[in-house]
Amino acid sequence: MTYCIGIMLDTGLVFASDSRTHAGVDDIASFCKMTVFERAADRVIVLLSSGNLAGTQAVVSVLKQRNENNDEPNLWSAKTLFDVAIQVSDAMRDINRRDGQHLAASAISFNASFILGGQVKGEPPRLFRIYTQGNFIEASVETPYFQTGETKYGKPIIDRVITRSTSLNNAAKSVLVSFDSTMSSNLSVGMPIDLVCYRRDSLEVQMRRRFEVGDDYFSTLGKQWTEGTREVFNRLPNLDW
Amino acid sequence: MTYCIGIMLDTGLVFASDSRTHAGVDDIASFCKMTVFERAADRVIVLLSSGNLAGTQAVVSVLKQRNENNDEPNLWSAKTLFDVAIQVSDAMRDINRRDGQHLAASAISFNASFILGGQVKGEPPRLFRIYTQGNFIEASVETPYFQTGETKYGKPIIDRVITRSTSLNNAAKSVLVSFDSTMSSNLSVGMPIDLVCYRRDSLEVQMRRRFEVGDDYFSTLGKQWTEGTREVFNRLPNLDW
Repeated sequence: MTYCIGIMLDTGLVFASDSRTHAGVDDIASFCKMTVFERAADRVIVLLSSGNLAGTQAVVSVLKQRNENNDEPNLWSAKTLFDVAIQVSDAMRDINRRDGQHLAASAISFNASFILGGQVKGEPPRLFRIYTQGNFIEASVETPYFQTGETKYGKPIIDRVITRSTSLNNAAKSVLVSFDSTMSSNLSVGMPIDLVCYRRDSLEVQMRRRFEVGDDYFSTLGKQWTEGTREVFNRLPNLDW
Repeated sequence: MTYCIGIMLDTGLVFASDSRTHAGVDDIASFCKMTVFERAADRVIVLLSSGNLAGTQAVVSVLKQRNENNDEPNLWSAKTLFDVAIQVSDAMRDINRRDGQHLAASAISFNASFILGGQVKGEPPRLFRIYTQGNFIEASVETPYFQTGETKYGKPIIDRVITRSTSLNNAAKSVLVSFDSTMSSNLSVGMPIDLVCYRRDSLEVQMRRRFEVGDDYFSTLGKQWTEGTREVFNRLPNLDW
């Protein structure tokens, strides 16, 4: 499984992804699910992958190859992030066209989905959720975040903290707590965690961190959260029967 | 959807269920998913239902009808809670035998599952999870609780609080916080919530509460939890990039 989240704030964007992939419990591996395309002063594009690794890797490879070829539309020439979403969608459909019938022969279907966000110069930051069929939706004021994969364990903390006016720092913290809650309750999501905070209009990635197993900050955060919530819990009034 | 949980502690058992049922978002209704069979000084049996309402209601009705007939095995004559689980399983399979092919004609399958717990005189308290196929598992020291339905949102708080030595009162509180988190993040789980705490060897239900929308205690609990966790969150150290 996977856990990815992208958040749109007034002051920028936050992205995070876990690294666990598995084909059964006896075939567990670690792959980075975050891809960053950056050209300073021009654009920052972040792609978070969920689903079958063969599918998501192929889509990212196709996008990278097209970036090398100036004769066809690519992520460097796209004028808007909407156009980037279209390009990701096109790459997904190309891969599905190639692999789909072969997967179907084993009763598997093409299964890749993405969270896409960033900023192209001339536009405000934008955030998209691209479904496995290649259609997509864009985050709005009312719904400032998208999750994929094992989304439910970590949703309550996000719902309690995140609004559009939350600071980048607080959003980053809530995302890490959300990952801590998810990993405590579900084995299919695992470290390392990749985190990017993008500051609106900076047009470069200034804040990027990878949290490996045993990371000091992440461990402290998890410990303080567990102890703090346990204290809050112990102070809750007893039920009067 | 549904959210039900049953917890086995050293000092007894805790059961809780929501009441929301729906066949699509425009057909939402409220049904109690908790059935208590009690004969003071002899046995307490609690059944929490998940799945298709027609199926779960039919199973409970069959069990109740059989209880009226002293000539066949029933919940009052069962010598152990394991035998009760067998009877629930048999009733499920009887209903599936009757309805299964008719549901299959509409590409639906029989879908009912249960959390069953309680105590029959002469035995310690026991807790079972009965799958839709009628097979079942029993809670152990390592895994002291079972959830059904929308289980994930509310699992982190349970995982952080519950061990076998947790008190009945704290377990009841953690269950209510777990429901609060679930209902904040998912519309398909809804009030009222039915809660039973069973004290080991009491052989009667002394603590039972229904929490309706706007319940004072439940609202206070949710408010204090939200405020308290927000404070804990605000005290967490900022990430040093």
